[in-house]
Amino acid sequence: MPLLERIETALTHHLARADSPSSPPQLVMAMHHAVFPGGARIRPQLCLAVSLACGDNAPELTNAAACAIELMHCASLVHDDMPCFDDADTRRGQVAVHKAFGEPLALLCGDALIVQAYQCLLQTPSAHPERTLALMQLISDSVGAPDGIVAGQAWECETRVELSQYQRAKTGALFVASTCAGALANGADPQAWRGLGEALGEAYQVADDIRDVMGDAQHLGKPVGQDVHHGRPSAAAALGLAGAIQYFEGLIQRAVASVPAGPRQSSLQKLVLMESERLVPRHVISHASVAPV
Amino acid sequence: MPLLERIETALTHHLARADSPSSPPQLVMAMHHAVFPGGARIRPQLCLAVSLACGDNAPELTNAAACAIELMHCASLVHDDMPCFDDADTRRGQVAVHKAFGEPLALLCGDALIVQAYQCLLQTPSAHPERTLALMQLISDSVGAPDGIVAGQAWECETRVELSQYQRAKTGALFVASTCAGALANGADPQAWRGLGEALGEAYQVADDIRDVMGDAQHLGKPVGQDVHHGRPSAAAALGLAGAIQYFEGLIQRAVASVPAGPRQSSLQKLVLMESERLVPRHVISHASVAPV
Repeated sequence: MPLLERIETALTHHLARADSPSSPPQLVMAMHHAVFPGGARIRPQLCLAVSLACGDNAPELTNAAACAIELMHCASLVHDDMPCFDDADTRRGQVAVHKAFGEPLALLCGDALIVQAYQCLLQTPSAHPERTLALMQLISDSVGAPDGIVAGQAWECETRVELSQYQRAKTGALFVASTCAGALANGADPQAWRGLGEALGEAYQVADDIRDVMGDAQHLGKPVGQDVHHGRPSAAAALGLAGAIQYFEGLIQRAVASVPAGPRQSSLQKLVLMESERLVPRHVISHASVAPV
Repeated sequence: MPLLERIETALTHHLARADSPSSPPQLVMAMHHAVFPGGARIRPQLCLAVSLACGDNAPELTNAAACAIELMHCASLVHDDMPCFDDADTRRGQVAVHKAFGEPLALLCGDALIVQAYQCLLQTPSAHPERTLALMQLISDSVGAPDGIVAGQAWECETRVELSQYQRAKTGALFVASTCAGALANGADPQAWRGLGEALGEAYQVADDIRDVMGDAQHLGKPVGQDVHHGRPSAAAALGLAGAIQYFEGLIQRAVASVPAGPRQSSLQKLVLMESERLVPRHVISHASVAPV
């Protein structure tokens, strides 16, 4: 089964558990709206790709971890789009949750998705309870304080922010959780996979900064120019566009080099390069490299 | 150690873990503001009281569960007070989090507290991983969809709501988790303690409705008249004030009767009666019983 199909099937399965006759109907609809249709599902794809490289010996547990990570990501998008943050009307090419269901349900939808993320793991029978606990610890660290995506977002409320610390928490943390979870679910050493998650997470954030500046709203599926508009730290602002693209390319090289040796090393490296092309297409790189800095 | 002191010590310990040099300072301050000083801490007290009745054979795990429940409760208060819900200026007698730190940090603070609740259990070494997992499952069910406090809050966004289903989810769920967690942490049967949580949870919600109508803002530590103002389902609205008080008394009798037999039965029953007097003082009951319905 292709990775993306495996993820969508697992997400449908895990989200169905929130849907029961005793559930408030609009909350369930808002949760579905927040999760389907998805974006590139890059985090859960990464988790499954690492799992395959580690033998994929606990596929249900791996699927649960991948879904938990994606639901945490979706929850953060729902809350980030609310009026007190980005006040974004669109997300993934459709109406944002707070626009479709109102602010109260958007707030509750994010909360419910965070809890549902834990439910993915808790409701998956496992022969390895110690792996389930370790996965929940890993994912909690990547979401909460002090170093997770919620803390990353909170840095936007501070007057003094170090760019790399901000990006490591805001985006990097969940990418690191994705690669490490793919290993952990198989009983493999997560530390060997940390470097790949770190490099890809930072590359992803830098690419987002680049696209935010270049104004490709259709590709992004959300409004552009948000970083300048909200005065947020941005690699494109700090390094200039050409500098940011050069930095992005260095991160992709680091990601490729950090894939541990093994039977699936080259296919994982190809996945990284394909993702790189999706994030910042080659014609953008060649255009920017001749433009004055 | 008295129950309340034990809870405050454990909460201080568990919240300190979010506080590190890499944490955004305002987020940490907002989390502290949301948790300290506390209200009556009735949920964690209930958890510890049941634990004592069950032998208190895993005190660290019990403390972690009690803290997790209290942090989930605090998170829900922070989000409920935001402008898109109650728009409340005060909570527990102090300025509400969104008023003190702004809406973005209030939103993130609630999210971080939910994750921190899981961290309480995940970061507590336990000789009983199966108990840790069961506690996280219990608490997740009492917070998320379909039947937890987030779902309870979401019923307020529906046009058709059944009062008892709404109250069972909005308030009852976390009370049931409190009594059941006290048993589960000790390896005892949680089902024996479900009835106490159900009756107390409903009594607590009915008492809140009564006080909201009677206008005792100082006692409540938050604005009054909110149910009518927001058109929320309310026992006082459905039954009239005298009817609601009579219903409350019946629930307290049910709670007392549901305490399982054992060496601590009578002290737990006394705790229920004391809590009843705190929730709806006797002079209120005697006044309302002579007033015309």
